[in-house]
Amino acid sequence: MIVSESTLRAFTQNIFLAMGCSQEHAILATDVLLLSDLRGIDSHGVARLTGYVRLWEKQRINATPDIKIVHETPTTATVDGDGGLGLVVAPFAMRIAIEKAEKYGSGWVSVRNSNHFGIAGYHGLMAVEKDMIGFAMTNASPLVAPTFSNERLLGTNPMCYAFPAGKYPPVIVDMATSAAANGKLEIAQRLGKQVPEGWIQDKQGNYTTDPHALKTGGSLLPLGSDREHGSHKGFGLSATVDILSAVLSGANYGPWVPPFVAFLDPPNDPVGQGIGHFLGAMRVDGFRPVDEFKSHLDNWIERFKSASTIDADQKVIIPGEPELEAQADRLTNGIPLVDAVANDLNELAKKLGVEALSA
Amino acid sequence: MIVSESTLRAFTQNIFLAMGCSQEHAILATDVLLLSDLRGIDSHGVARLTGYVRLWEKQRINATPDIKIVHETPTTATVDGDGGLGLVVAPFAMRIAIEKAEKYGSGWVSVRNSNHFGIAGYHGLMAVEKDMIGFAMTNASPLVAPTFSNERLLGTNPMCYAFPAGKYPPVIVDMATSAAANGKLEIAQRLGKQVPEGWIQDKQGNYTTDPHALKTGGSLLPLGSDREHGSHKGFGLSATVDILSAVLSGANYGPWVPPFVAFLDPPNDPVGQGIGHFLGAMRVDGFRPVDEFKSHLDNWIERFKSASTIDADQKVIIPGEPELEAQADRLTNGIPLVDAVANDLNELAKKLGVEALSA
Repeated sequence: MIVSESTLRAFTQNIFLAMGCSQEHAILATDVLLLSDLRGIDSHGVARLTGYVRLWEKQRINATPDIKIVHETPTTATVDGDGGLGLVVAPFAMRIAIEKAEKYGSGWVSVRNSNHFGIAGYHGLMAVEKDMIGFAMTNASPLVAPTFSNERLLGTNPMCYAFPAGKYPPVIVDMATSAAANGKLEIAQRLGKQVPEGWIQDKQGNYTTDPHALKTGGSLLPLGSDREHGSHKGFGLSATVDILSAVLSGANYGPWVPPFVAFLDPPNDPVGQGIGHFLGAMRVDGFRPVDEFKSHLDNWIERFKSASTIDADQKVIIPGEPELEAQADRLTNGIPLVDAVANDLNELAKKLGVEALSA
Repeated sequence: MIVSESTLRAFTQNIFLAMGCSQEHAILATDVLLLSDLRGIDSHGVARLTGYVRLWEKQRINATPDIKIVHETPTTATVDGDGGLGLVVAPFAMRIAIEKAEKYGSGWVSVRNSNHFGIAGYHGLMAVEKDMIGFAMTNASPLVAPTFSNERLLGTNPMCYAFPAGKYPPVIVDMATSAAANGKLEIAQRLGKQVPEGWIQDKQGNYTTDPHALKTGGSLLPLGSDREHGSHKGFGLSATVDILSAVLSGANYGPWVPPFVAFLDPPNDPVGQGIGHFLGAMRVDGFRPVDEFKSHLDNWIERFKSASTIDADQKVIIPGEPELEAQADRLTNGIPLVDAVANDLNELAKKLGVEALSA
């Protein structure tokens, strides 16, 4: 099914409204999900809507949260998300970071008691729109084993760094700190394909190419895949995300992070509240005039885009560029939904008494 | 040759004094180098002293820099290092970040017109000593090709994130954003050994195990090694370091970064001044009470240290732990110097009229 952006937006808002979200929150949560679908990151968009609803049904997501600052200095804050959708908690926190940056040059917010926040890039882009540099991270359900371990102790814990450019689109680094994102495994599972060595290990800690290995005690591997190729670096980055997002805010960390899937219960010995995020904004003109920065970033982009390449058909890709191309295409041609997702969404619509989605 | 920490410290200070550094700068620069040798990161300690002196002889390092803030807000600043040793410029900048954090919760400094700053961990630790979280990054001479390219456009651009713990040592993530650090290649070259596939490529962009391939147009690979294993993420991290350190400060970036080796001239079309760093500090108590944070970070460390492991003999390593063990050992038993380094240092001593180093 191919649906237009406006159709999918209206449908998604109705689902959030049916959950009991306020108009404002339904619009915002939809905006975060839709950007993911528009940018071609299908794993983080409306495909997750059913998952959010299931968590809400289990009272693990609060549709009417009282999100608030619980501690702050001029440039730092800790936010309690009151169990709300990360899709609304994270933008709330990023707005605080931006306001602090407007006054003092930079702002940093660590968030507890939240849930899955969609794509990190959405939050990073909020800063870019204000000529700031955006930082966005979140911890997530444990799926990744640290180097030398066969235990799932970390999420795919993404990091996003976002920079405003001049005549080119912003540079958006938005990446899981695991070798492969979980979404890529799910695609291989659906297609019945093997995955490359270096993405996952089985329960004993041996490389496996079976995308179902996580169901039998296997784990994702950190970026770098093995010690010799730097998996301790992927582990270190994932640890950094976990500490900034959760140890700093009072959220759950490591294996205590509550699972995203509703059929698995959260650990019964929590070390904090919900999951954690970390968001930051720095004014570019806190360092040098915005025009100067942008013109040099344009020059950086041009130099990398014109780099000599190994294969004449494959240019160097600037971080954020493929997502922007997808966005232009999908705004014009619509957003493709695989059958499984379209069917799921219409089941959901029926259950919540919302008008069905149609092409 | 095995030398005591105090002997090596006195020797190194004398070399910096002979270059014309002030007493204060000689002590500081030595402290940065010695911490690297003590922590077992032999590639970044006194082994580089000859390199610094050669750059000074070529007037590419200024021994008496007038380091100053050229732009600032309450929590951000741009520092001009006046061509000084990164070993003194970076601590100057980190002190500013810490002072700003003391007043406003956080502080961020981008640095231009500097040189190689030693190990990033030294600067991160400065913040940790004040119960702050430390960030330290630097760009470096181009050796790494972006994904899909066979051109050296980025340095090994390290990132450091440093966190104060309670009863355990601080967690120090300090890592090159390439698959392997250049120092590891140099070791393989000295020993006449091959390196693993995934560290470097030859001029045509094919994997090679020849550690000398960089001399014939080859390049290091980003963390992740190839596209399938996430090398675009290593490229994205390295790009982030380059932009925060240089595009933001007005230093040279990408292929314009001046080479560390004195026998290669800097590009004759610079896009900025010298190399760039990015340093930051955030007060832990800007988010939650220090004791709470430290006790949760201790819990985090304990959980990861006690993780189930693949091999009974190989525990999970907490970032920063091996370096601390090396430091305890070397403070007691002395610092081993390979013959090539000891001979280089004594050549240097002779040239500068400094007392020779002896075991």
